[in-house]
Amino acid sequence: MEKINVAILGYGNLGKGVETGLKNAEDMNLVGVFTRRDPSTVKSETKAYHIDELANFKDKIDVLIMCGGSKSDIPEQGPIMAKDFNTVDSFDTHAKVPAYFDKMNEISLQNKKVSIISTGWDPGLFSINRVLAQAVLPQGETYTFWGKGVSQGHSDAVRRIKGVKDAKQYTIPNTELVEQIKNKNHVEYQNNTAHKREVFVVLENGSDQNEIERQIKTMPDYFADYETTVHFIDEQTMIKDHSGIPHGGEVLRLGQTGNEGKSLYGFSLDLTSNPEFTASVNIAFARAAYKLSKANQYGAKTVLDIPIAMLSKHDGEYLRAHML
Amino acid sequence: MEKINVAILGYGNLGKGVETGLKNAEDMNLVGVFTRRDPSTVKSETKAYHIDELANFKDKIDVLIMCGGSKSDIPEQGPIMAKDFNTVDSFDTHAKVPAYFDKMNEISLQNKKVSIISTGWDPGLFSINRVLAQAVLPQGETYTFWGKGVSQGHSDAVRRIKGVKDAKQYTIPNTELVEQIKNKNHVEYQNNTAHKREVFVVLENGSDQNEIERQIKTMPDYFADYETTVHFIDEQTMIKDHSGIPHGGEVLRLGQTGNEGKSLYGFSLDLTSNPEFTASVNIAFARAAYKLSKANQYGAKTVLDIPIAMLSKHDGEYLRAHML
Repeated sequence: MEKINVAILGYGNLGKGVETGLKNAEDMNLVGVFTRRDPSTVKSETKAYHIDELANFKDKIDVLIMCGGSKSDIPEQGPIMAKDFNTVDSFDTHAKVPAYFDKMNEISLQNKKVSIISTGWDPGLFSINRVLAQAVLPQGETYTFWGKGVSQGHSDAVRRIKGVKDAKQYTIPNTELVEQIKNKNHVEYQNNTAHKREVFVVLENGSDQNEIERQIKTMPDYFADYETTVHFIDEQTMIKDHSGIPHGGEVLRLGQTGNEGKSLYGFSLDLTSNPEFTASVNIAFARAAYKLSKANQYGAKTVLDIPIAMLSKHDGEYLRAHML
Repeated sequence: MEKINVAILGYGNLGKGVETGLKNAEDMNLVGVFTRRDPSTVKSETKAYHIDELANFKDKIDVLIMCGGSKSDIPEQGPIMAKDFNTVDSFDTHAKVPAYFDKMNEISLQNKKVSIISTGWDPGLFSINRVLAQAVLPQGETYTFWGKGVSQGHSDAVRRIKGVKDAKQYTIPNTELVEQIKNKNHVEYQNNTAHKREVFVVLENGSDQNEIERQIKTMPDYFADYETTVHFIDEQTMIKDHSGIPHGGEVLRLGQTGNEGKSLYGFSLDLTSNPEFTASVNIAFARAAYKLSKANQYGAKTVLDIPIAMLSKHDGEYLRAHML
C-alpha cells in the first residue's frame, strides 16, 4: 500500500499527540517533525528538522499537520505553508475563523493545495454535531457544555497573578441543567450559569492567600461572572493529582417534530487527554486532505465541507457493507 | 427565495412525518402526496395523487422522498423512480444495502439524477457516527445500543401468533453494560445480552395465556436468545399507554490514544416519535439531494458521502461565522 506522507510542524503537547497517534494509522508515514527550536534539543521519536528545512521537503510531504497555537503560530504559519503543502490545523479562535478561512482559501486555491482548518473537537466534531442537529431538528435549541476539563487559557490567566507559582483550572458543566435537558425540558442557558470554575493553586512562599483568591474571583471575563471555587494545594499534590489534561463536553439539541414529538440529540466526549484526542482528529482530517488533493478538490475546507467517508481508511464499498 | 419542490411517495407513518416536518423547512415546498391507494381515501393535508400521475410531475418535483417499506416497496420503487427523479429513501435492510446502492447508482448516473439511500438514524446518523468514531479513534471498540423503543418487526411477529389480538414490543438496552462503557471499561458485547425485550399483549377471548407466552419466548431469532418479559394487558391499557412509537439508542466508542489516554465518544438519540424523527432526517437529506443535483454530482450516495454543510439551509459563510 502506498502510504500518505505526513509531517508535523510544532512539537508541543499537540505535536507529540500527532506523533503518537500516527502509530495507529497504518496508511500513513511520518516523514519528520519540524520546529523553530534547535532540532537537537527536541526529544521526538521521529527525526526533527528545523522549520527552514521544510523547503527541501515540498515533494516528500503529502500533508503537513500544523500543531502550533491559535494565537500567533497558526495565523502566521498557515498562509505561508499553504503555498507549498496541503495542511491541516486546529485553529480554534472562533471569531477569527471567517477571515482565516478566506485567506487560506485564496492561497491554497492559487497553489492547488488543500487546507483543512479548525479540526479538533470544538471547533471540529462539536461543530459537525451543531450543524447536523440543527439541520435535522430545525425547531429546537442547541446547548453546548464543556468539561469537566482543563482550560489552558484560564490556568494561564491564574498563573500570571503575582504570588502564584502554579495553577490549574477546571471547567465544570452544570450537571443539573444537563439533566433537565436530558429529561426533555427546555432551559435558560447562559455560558456563565451553565458552567462552574474550579481552580487549584500553588502559592509562592509568603503570598497572601486571601488576596490571590480575591484576584482570581474578580478577574473579568475569566472568572467574575462564574461560580468559582479556589483550592490552595502544595506542589506535590499538584503534580500527583493535576498533571493530566482531561477534557470533554457535550452538544445537546432538544427539538420538536410534529405537534407532540420531542427529540433529544446528544453528542458527547470524555477524554483523559485533550491534546491526544485533538491530534487523533487532526490525523483523520489529514487523510481527508490527501484524498481531496488526489481528487483535485483544492481550497480551504472546514470539517463541515468534508464527507465522513473521506476520514476513513476504508473505501465506500467496505463502508456500505460493514459500517452503514 | 426559490423553494425546493418536494413530493412524498407513500403515506404511512413516515410519509405523514415528512408532511408534518416540511412545515419546519421554510426553504421547501410540498408539491403533493403520491400513493398506490385511491387518492380520495388518503387523509393527507396536502393534495394526494395516484402514483401513476407521477409521470406528469417530472419537471415539477426537485426531490422525491420515498416513504414506503424496505421489504418490498423501496427495492421495487427506487430503481423506477431514479430514472425520473432525485430521490431520498430510508432503506434499512443493512444486508441488502450494497446491491441496492449499485442498482440505484447505475440508474441515477444514467439519468443524471441523485439518489440518497438509507437515510434516517440507523442506518443514517448512527452510521455517520460509527464511521467518524472509528476514523478518529482507530484503536478501540464501537458499541451500538437500541432503545428503549418500539420494534415494529418484533411487534408484528407477536401479532401473527394465533390468539393474539394486539401486541407491542419494546427493545431495552442493558443499562448496566452502557454504564460500564461510560466508565471507560471495555465490555463483552453481544446483541442478545446487550438488549432485553419487553412485550405487551392483548389476547383474543379464550386464548391460552401460558401457551402464548411460551410461543413468544421460544420464537427463534426474535426472542429465543433474549431475556424476554411478557405482560398481558387489556385493550384500553394498550391504547392508553402504548400508542406512541418512541425509539432511540446510542453509539459509543471507547478508544485508546497514546499509551494511557482513553477517549469515550458518544452519540445518542431519545425520540418520542421514531417516524417523525426519521422523516426529519429524510428532509435534511432531500435538501442535500437538491444541492448535489444543482452541482451535477449525480449517482447514488449514502449519508457517508455527503458533507454535513449540505444538510443545512445556511451557506458556508454563515456556518463558519456562527456554527463552527
